[in-house]
Amino acid sequence: MAERKINMGMVGGGPGSFIGRIHFNGAVLDGRIDLVCGAFSSDPERSKAAGKSYFLPDDRIYGSWEEMLLKEKALPEGKRMDFLCIATPNHAHFGPARMALENGFHVVSDKPLTFDTAEAEILADLVEKTGLIFAVTHAYTGYPMVKEAREMIRTGELGKIRKVVSEYPQGWLSDPLEKGDNVQAGWRTDPHRSGKSGCMGDIGTHALNLAEYVTGLKVTQLCADLSTMVEGRLLDDDGNVLVRYSNGARGIIYASQVSAGEENGLRIRVYGEKGGIEWVQAEPNRLEVKWKDRPLEVRKPGNPYLSELALYNCRMPAGHPEGLIEAFGNIYRNVATCIQCRIDGTTPPAEALDFPKVTDGLRGMQFIDRLIESSESDSKWMNF
Amino acid sequence: MAERKINMGMVGGGPGSFIGRIHFNGAVLDGRIDLVCGAFSSDPERSKAAGKSYFLPDDRIYGSWEEMLLKEKALPEGKRMDFLCIATPNHAHFGPARMALENGFHVVSDKPLTFDTAEAEILADLVEKTGLIFAVTHAYTGYPMVKEAREMIRTGELGKIRKVVSEYPQGWLSDPLEKGDNVQAGWRTDPHRSGKSGCMGDIGTHALNLAEYVTGLKVTQLCADLSTMVEGRLLDDDGNVLVRYSNGARGIIYASQVSAGEENGLRIRVYGEKGGIEWVQAEPNRLEVKWKDRPLEVRKPGNPYLSELALYNCRMPAGHPEGLIEAFGNIYRNVATCIQCRIDGTTPPAEALDFPKVTDGLRGMQFIDRLIESSESDSKWMNF
Amino acid sequence: MAERKINMGMVGGGPGSFIGRIHFNGAVLDGRIDLVCGAFSSDPERSKAAGKSYFLPDDRIYGSWEEMLLKEKALPEGKRMDFLCIATPNHAHFGPARMALENGFHVVSDKPLTFDTAEAEILADLVEKTGLIFAVTHAYTGYPMVKEAREMIRTGELGKIRKVVSEYPQGWLSDPLEKGDNVQAGWRTDPHRSGKSGCMGDIGTHALNLAEYVTGLKVTQLCADLSTMVEGRLLDDDGNVLVRYSNGARGIIYASQVSAGEENGLRIRVYGEKGGIEWVQAEPNRLEVKWKDRPLEVRKPGNPYLSELALYNCRMPAGHPEGLIEAFGNIYRNVATCIQCRIDGTTPPAEALDFPKVTDGLRGMQFIDRLIESSESDSKWMNF
Amino acid sequence: MAERKINMGMVGGGPGSFIGRIHFNGAVLDGRIDLVCGAFSSDPERSKAAGKSYFLPDDRIYGSWEEMLLKEKALPEGKRMDFLCIATPNHAHFGPARMALENGFHVVSDKPLTFDTAEAEILADLVEKTGLIFAVTHAYTGYPMVKEAREMIRTGELGKIRKVVSEYPQGWLSDPLEKGDNVQAGWRTDPHRSGKSGCMGDIGTHALNLAEYVTGLKVTQLCADLSTMVEGRLLDDDGNVLVRYSNGARGIIYASQVSAGEENGLRIRVYGEKGGIEWVQAEPNRLEVKWKDRPLEVRKPGNPYLSELALYNCRMPAGHPEGLIEAFGNIYRNVATCIQCRIDGTTPPAEALDFPKVTDGLRGMQFIDRLIESSESDSKWMNF
Repeated sequence: MAERKINMGMVGGGPGSFIGRIHFNGAVLDGRIDLVCGAFSSDPERSKAAGKSYFLPDDRIYGSWEEMLLKEKALPEGKRMDFLCIATPNHAHFGPARMALENGFHVVSDKPLTFDTAEAEILADLVEKTGLIFAVTHAYTGYPMVKEAREMIRTGELGKIRKVVSEYPQGWLSDPLEKGDNVQAGWRTDPHRSGKSGCMGDIGTHALNLAEYVTGLKVTQLCADLSTMVEGRLLDDDGNVLVRYSNGARGIIYASQVSAGEENGLRIRVYGEKGGIEWVQAEPNRLEVKWKDRPLEVRKPGNPYLSELALYNCRMPAGHPEGLIEAFGNIYRNVATCIQCRIDGTTPPAEALDFPKVTDGLRGMQFIDRLIESSESDSKWMNF
Repeated sequence: MAERKINMGMVGGGPGSFIGRIHFNGAVLDGRIDLVCGAFSSDPERSKAAGKSYFLPDDRIYGSWEEMLLKEKALPEGKRMDFLCIATPNHAHFGPARMALENGFHVVSDKPLTFDTAEAEILADLVEKTGLIFAVTHAYTGYPMVKEAREMIRTGELGKIRKVVSEYPQGWLSDPLEKGDNVQAGWRTDPHRSGKSGCMGDIGTHALNLAEYVTGLKVTQLCADLSTMVEGRLLDDDGNVLVRYSNGARGIIYASQVSAGEENGLRIRVYGEKGGIEWVQAEPNRLEVKWKDRPLEVRKPGNPYLSELALYNCRMPAGHPEGLIEAFGNIYRNVATCIQCRIDGTTPPAEALDFPKVTDGLRGMQFIDRLIESSESDSKWMNF
Repeated sequence: MAERKINMGMVGGGPGSFIGRIHFNGAVLDGRIDLVCGAFSSDPERSKAAGKSYFLPDDRIYGSWEEMLLKEKALPEGKRMDFLCIATPNHAHFGPARMALENGFHVVSDKPLTFDTAEAEILADLVEKTGLIFAVTHAYTGYPMVKEAREMIRTGELGKIRKVVSEYPQGWLSDPLEKGDNVQAGWRTDPHRSGKSGCMGDIGTHALNLAEYVTGLKVTQLCADLSTMVEGRLLDDDGNVLVRYSNGARGIIYASQVSAGEENGLRIRVYGEKGGIEWVQAEPNRLEVKWKDRPLEVRKPGNPYLSELALYNCRMPAGHPEGLIEAFGNIYRNVATCIQCRIDGTTPPAEALDFPKVTDGLRGMQFIDRLIESSESDSKWMNF
Repeated sequence: MAERKINMGMVGGGPGSFIGRIHFNGAVLDGRIDLVCGAFSSDPERSKAAGKSYFLPDDRIYGSWEEMLLKEKALPEGKRMDFLCIATPNHAHFGPARMALENGFHVVSDKPLTFDTAEAEILADLVEKTGLIFAVTHAYTGYPMVKEAREMIRTGELGKIRKVVSEYPQGWLSDPLEKGDNVQAGWRTDPHRSGKSGCMGDIGTHALNLAEYVTGLKVTQLCADLSTMVEGRLLDDDGNVLVRYSNGARGIIYASQVSAGEENGLRIRVYGEKGGIEWVQAEPNRLEVKWKDRPLEVRKPGNPYLSELALYNCRMPAGHPEGLIEAFGNIYRNVATCIQCRIDGTTPPAEALDFPKVTDGLRGMQFIDRLIESSESDSKWMNF
């Protein structure tokens, strides 16, 4: 049994960062992880305020992540942070991630992994070299019903997969909010902070990750049509993609931030020879299973009929809804377990290794490259 | 006020024809139309049996449509059929349709309009030349909530349209049923009876028609990926298409008959600058309206808040579900009204003219051509 | 095989009668029944106009139902009406029903059966004495998914039934519409035309009928709390009832016409030892089956996995929605089959006998009596 | 700004306690509360193991709550626990609650408040006398959409309330699990640990609390029919209740633990003169608003159109689901804020005072008394 909690440091996640707060909630939810330090903002005053709101002592609130990583490294094991949580905008993932790895810290990073693919490759190499744990929060794969879908397909319940539709419509960027004072809209539509893609980088990568995670297949060819619907916007805010999978399955991936009225509409449908599944993020505690010759089935968390992997990721008995914070929590719980096993010199259970890794993050970056390339091309298919 | 019912003759629709029965149900539902004659099968015995099941007198049950059209023409107005309902497989639409038009009969034909585009063009020309009424049963546009969606967009409630997703997954051809004795599967997967496309011709054309009807836009470019998932099948059973619309909107059209577990999953989502709509055929009495800055709204038939066009197509007060037969009924009611106005020498109300016409059928045939062409091409975009 | 259609006469159902139109639609939908005559209104001019709208010849449009019954009786079999459809307000059911039975006509009557129980008993006696067919349109039991629920329970799939919740909220009488010119509100809240109960008579009887039909059980005790929420209204517009069933099951029946915002919210839930079912009228093509130890199941019309009784009542393959008119149609189809068998001297199939009969109507009237009595009593339980 | 976290001690919540874990998750989720000590089981070894799993130091893991309260009291403010969380079975709420209050500790207790009403009254008196904070986790009122419903009604959006249906079906006790080794079933069906009611005490009290919270009304009369469906069970496992509210509204409250196939089906519907609301616990991030004369509306968390009270209880932007742990978290956040204000000598904001209190718990106990009394009586109405 573990003798202490796992220690987390955080970069980013200061006032106004919605995602930083979710990382925090998910990390501490299960009582396995403590936030022990942070560099919450590049503005030292804001960083201090954020650190105070997390009740950190003054000497663990840092003015920069460079300072944090150096000073934490000097602290004794058990006191110093074990891993770094990165909750900054995209362009500021790479610096702290690399330095953390170079200094022996495990990492949990928000997605997309980096500003560009070159950075992502460096991180992937570093992870391979150092053997450190690196999680990327494609957190939607943390939901138990997503795990159940994956297990159904992995064990062949649906037969050979033929069709995959993964979609992610949002509507919050229907207006040019980036011209006002909306912080989120500001950086997410800014090529200098978001990278070469807007919508597809932000949420299209989730749609890809979910599709590949659930099916266990890889997209091998794609044909993309990205567009910018809001006048004057500098990055894509909508994208439609035809895809082909490694096993011959066909499908669609689409994402949008100008689908006015959609909140956060991530949805996946997968069809095999024997049946299909459908999962909708906004109602995450349902997995529809559609059979060729039997009634529609709806599986729900907390029930004994679920796969072991799904049940491993449920906290409560049936009928007690869990949400996105719990999905983040499942990733953090797995990371904590894996770090603990490193401390203990033991091997983590297979279930605990089931979280998105740096290679998933790298794949997302490569996906963005291919999408942009394809969208600008007159040729139909782009290999991936 | 009309002095008599409108007389319908039918070709096809014999034993085992599911669509023939729906045509009949929809036609007679409102008491405006009588079935007076038919050539229900190319087998005279089967035709006779079908005619008896409709309680037709012997002399109005014909052994062939050629015979029927000639003999009916010789009957006096009021006794003879006013229009021909065509409920045969695709390859057998053209013959009776042309001869009906050439002999002065109005026509209601099932979809897709014909076996190939050349035939469709001939029919379109004939309709233009003769001025006869020609309806094509893209019946999903007969639902009141589809009408409401169209009206919302036409009057600008959603603002400029940016994104359209029209999809039609079915799963009933997941297995090679055509190798057994399934009559429907037999002709629908047979290039000699169905035409050059299977799935996209059968239901992809519905998805196109619905998208164009609801938005009032035209698809101008497309990029298709059609496939045949069931080994040995001769026609496509799945297709994914990127589309661009006349006003710059982007979208997706897809159809499938191998999405195992889907019954009849026609669904459309349209997003404009101010909000979006979503309609699902399997629950046709709901129209979800998604607003950028207000709660989700669900409009339902029979309510005074609906548009006039929607209410014109409702039979009952709110809360009393109508289904596909009623949607067919709305087309037939409109056709009956238009024929009655011809008889009376009056002009039909605008609402009664709102049904799919030969030009919609022709467009469907052209769509099939473009899809096949695009799917076989390495170029990305095909003009349409 | 039948040689002719079954002939229907109608009383009531003139202009403004929503239920008359549904009776007509349901009756003619399947091509088994012809409307041949009618006395559509007590005002001869209105009756004539209605008859014309149904394309009846002048001599089959009558000024009164007395006249109709006498004159039709004098016509030869095959020409004269076979059965009478009664679509008048409650107080005008009894007269035509009795006279029809006394003159050898079968009857389909709207519900509640009569103005009071004494009248209902007379009709039940007459039916027993004459052996004529008498259907009461508790039409919600005509839906295929309701049939499926009944079959599941009958065959023991749910185990012994323990709990039944049958509810019917509407909101259309939230305001005193009867003080304006709303015809429906006028007679339905008028004790001289509706009978001693408003809401419970109109729709509470549906909730009872559905519960008893689906479970095969009888309510044996009840405890009611009826109320009138709209000031000045003369009849109940809301009622809540505790009930106990013949096998020891407990439950609730409630109905309301002042549940503002509800359209036509009939819903039933039944729980047995092994699982439960839920069916909602507004989405009639779904039957939720809730198992103790398996995933939730959703059964839908047109699927081979359904019971024979359910499939007997489906017109289309899976995924093609049917609505209330088709549910009425199922009752009419059964009535037509039964009359045809009388003509042929054969025995109808069991499925065709499955429609609500005069005894169900009588039971509804007795239910109203007991509810009123219970609601006014200080004692808790009233036997039923 | 607060200088430290609020310190929580816990009684109960050891291995196998599902509710103890939820209390913990909800308490620590927002980083405002630390678990600093506990007496997790009456078995010292089990208590120790539980404490270790929470990473507590040995000297803060106690063998009994008496010991814990005494020893914690001796610790300096800031180190000692600020409040006690009670997560034991019903019969073991009172002891620690009373002693905590008598020793100056605030309390968060699970529901129902106590074993019997006498105990509850003592606690209510003590709270009044001491002025300490006492929350009872009727946690379903912590959901933001429940808050929104309350605000809509409070501000008159629905008009005068006429009808309230509050129901809570579960199915997990459909079999006599208490005869096996199911710990939860064991104590919840045991009159010596659960109190005089089973189902109604456990979840019927939630249904009452939710109804009164949402409507702002009080139940003033009731008529109950409680039953025990599973043979040999000692307490009720199902109950149906007619209720009347202080303003004349009527309604139903029912609960069941033998509604086989239901997971945790708490649902409330409230209807006023202008419209109604419906909220379902299993899909907590939706509030259906049904209007008399406008389309159905669905309100969702995180949207600017919500009331301030609802938004105060949301953690994330629209479309990111929150669940039951977050609802518990909202109560704990409020308790933490109120305790902090005591420390700071300030007045908490109105939103922070919005949590269920000892008086709500007492009311639940009185409700149980009245239900049992009514169920055994032949008289119809029982005042409450």
